[in-house]
Amino acid sequence: MTFANVGTLGTKAGQRDALVEILLRPKPELRDVGCLLYEVGINEDVPDTVFVCELWESAEAHQDSLKLEGVQAAISEAAPLLSGDNGGHRFTVLGSPLRTDGTRQSRHSL
Amino acid sequence: MTFANVGTLGTKAGQRDALVEILLRPKPELRDVGCLLYEVGINEDVPDTVFVCELWESAEAHQDSLKLEGVQAAISEAAPLLSGDNGGHRFTVLGSPLRTDGTRQSRHSL
Repeated sequence: MTFANVGTLGTKAGQRDALVEILLRPKPELRDVGCLLYEVGINEDVPDTVFVCELWESAEAHQDSLKLEGVQAAISEAAPLLSGDNGGHRFTVLGSPLRTDGTRQSRHSL
Repeated sequence: MTFANVGTLGTKAGQRDALVEILLRPKPELRDVGCLLYEVGINEDVPDTVFVCELWESAEAHQDSLKLEGVQAAISEAAPLLSGDNGGHRFTVLGSPLRTDGTRQSRHSL
């Protein structure tokens, strides 16, 4: 079942763009472990906050990604930038109104 | 700029699956107005809640979708199911570590 992780990462004052830079570095190895989508963004009305929206082939794929060397390095580099004020949700994807072949899915066509 | 709308829709007790059914009905016309991704899901640890994760070509595309006849009908049908306890975030997508052609994007390859 496709697993979604959407959330916010609060940063220390003025560190938002530095965190964005870390998160946007190409990591094709994420796709190799089952990442289907990983979007990073900002909202100018919400200071010191980075938004992420991730889709994974499974919750296990997401967990596995955290063990990747490049991801571990990025987490270490990002840690000093974070305020600790994080939020978000995890959920199981049931389907999409964009897919006309029924509500369930086995994979995304990303 | 790609626009993201991620959030939660709280339902009255026991109405979660009825709301999911409405949201998952195929609506290919969403793609026509600029919807790039629209995932609907649940989390068994969070009762009476439906999760959505949407990507649009622009914030205007999202607004325009709300005027579609089918969307208006779905909103009317869903309204009695909702508790009013909604949450979420809107943000501008800056890029993805899955895309190796730089951090900015003009479109998704969904």
